[in-house]
Order: sequence, then C-alpha cells, then structure tokens
Amino acid sequence: MAVETIHVTGMTCGHCVAAVTDELTKVDGVTRVEVDLASGAVTIESAQPVDRAVLAEAIDEAGYDLAP
Amino acid sequence: MAVETIHVTGMTCGHCVAAVTDELTKVDGVTRVEVDLASGAVTIESAQPVDRAVLAEAIDEAGYDLAP
Repeated sequence: MAVETIHVTGMTCGHCVAAVTDELTKVDGVTRVEVDLASGAVTIESAQPVDRAVLAEAIDEAGYDLAP
Repeated sequence: MAVETIHVTGMTCGHCVAAVTDELTKVDGVTRVEVDLASGAVTIESAQPVDRAVLAEAIDEAGYDLAP
C-alpha cells in the first residue's frame, strides 16, 4: 500500500472537498482519500504509488490545482 | 411578476452558488434565480412575492444564511 500527502489549492468549502475527494477516488488503485480543507492537505492511500501527473489531472478535473 | 434581491452569506465558490440556486429554484412560484458570488446578492423572480421566511428556509436548507 502507498500513502502520499499532496497539497491542493483553491478549495474553499465542503463542496470543494467533496469534488476533489470524488475525482481522486475515481483514480485507478486509490482506496482512500482524506482532505483537510484548512491546509489543503490531501492524503491518498492506494494499492500502488500513483503517478503525480494522474493525480494532477484528477484534481484539475475537479476544478482545482495541485500545488507545486 | 415579483423581483426581489436578497443577500446570502457564507457562499465561497461555484458549488455554493449552485446549491443556493438549486434550493431557491425549488421554492413554489420562483421562476428565476441569479446569484452574484462576490457580493452575495441573490435576485429572485417569482410569479407572486415570496415570503421572506420561505426564502430563508430554502437558503438554510442549502447550508447558508440569509443576511438580516
């Protein structure tokens, strides 16, 4: 199992958290997503490590940005 | 036709706008809802004037507050 914490910018409310969680949960291999709205920290558990570009694409799809 | 502008507090993003629009559109007689996120101004068109308490209830249902 892989656990990674990334940072997402632009989330302002619970709907934003839900949108990001929803898109990341759809990523192949992801088993759990936890978002801290205040800090923008997003912890992702997955069967194998997930490519950062794939995470960035999912976050973009939700309407937000992966912090550099 | 009645047109009224109210102010809603707590909206921070497009999802908030959608949630408020959705709940107000469900109110009996409401034909059009327009939300300005920056100012919180919400303009409501309806067949007849709608009771403020009914609007407040719909906004509360969406998770926000009608400004006094």
